[in-house]
Amino acid sequence: MALVGRAFGADEVWVDERDEELERIVADAVERFGGPFTIRTGVKWKRATREWKGKVVHLTMYGEHLDDVLERVPDEDLLVVVGAGKMPGEVFDLADFNVAVGNQPHSEVAALAVFLDRLLKGEGIRKEFSGRMRVIPSPRGKVVE
Amino acid sequence: MALVGRAFGADEVWVDERDEELERIVADAVERFGGPFTIRTGVKWKRATREWKGKVVHLTMYGEHLDDVLERVPDEDLLVVVGAGKMPGEVFDLADFNVAVGNQPHSEVAALAVFLDRLLKGEGIRKEFSGRMRVIPSPRGKVVE
Repeated sequence: MALVGRAFGADEVWVDERDEELERIVADAVERFGGPFTIRTGVKWKRATREWKGKVVHLTMYGEHLDDVLERVPDEDLLVVVGAGKMPGEVFDLADFNVAVGNQPHSEVAALAVFLDRLLKGEGIRKEFSGRMRVIPSPRGKVVE
Repeated sequence: MALVGRAFGADEVWVDERDEELERIVADAVERFGGPFTIRTGVKWKRATREWKGKVVHLTMYGEHLDDVLERVPDEDLLVVVGAGKMPGEVFDLADFNVAVGNQPHSEVAALAVFLDRLLKGEGIRKEFSGRMRVIPSPRGKVVE
């Protein structure tokens, strides 16, 4: 989820549960492939959502269809809430927008990726990062600088 | 991965490893939320890829950037190959297109979702399924028929 956030144009990821191993993994990817991108863990989701100054999007298969809501969602100062497993009912009320990337069961990771890709009109995966390593796009095999 | 395939417009998913539990889970989702969508497990990937009559896309962070290759990829009779973990080198040669949904590390699930969403121009998540249950898009809460 964190790497998807980074690769599709998010600036930062916050995780409810404290997880130093996850912080280390993400920091390592940022050091190798570039930033800026940060991770914070141990962030209480309810408080963080309430205190957020911008708009809040909750991705859920029960929400309004992405195609019907996207034009109302601002692409700045946006907090996107995604949960693994069953989410507490309150999140539906705390969110400004409950958005379904299709009203079918699939994957939070997929929902986040497609939501960001659509929100940023494909700019996310075109973003330049400057890390120690860079993949050179190639029709065959692996080319890394 | 299987549910993402179904939700984003694939007709079928093939899995290399035999996995009856996975078959059962996917069949159950199809029974509840609708098809047509099928899963086959225990499909030898190399043979299946070689014998495929249409084009083959391999999703990999090392490939050509999605934006640069998508217009050359047909949206029918397409086999999309994705792997968890390190893929055998041969897959790069067996594929007609090695495609990077961004040349950054992220997630195979995210790559499949965004690839299908772009390929089908968003039609995947608009597809109507007829199952026993149907989620009614809603700005708040959960409405299921």
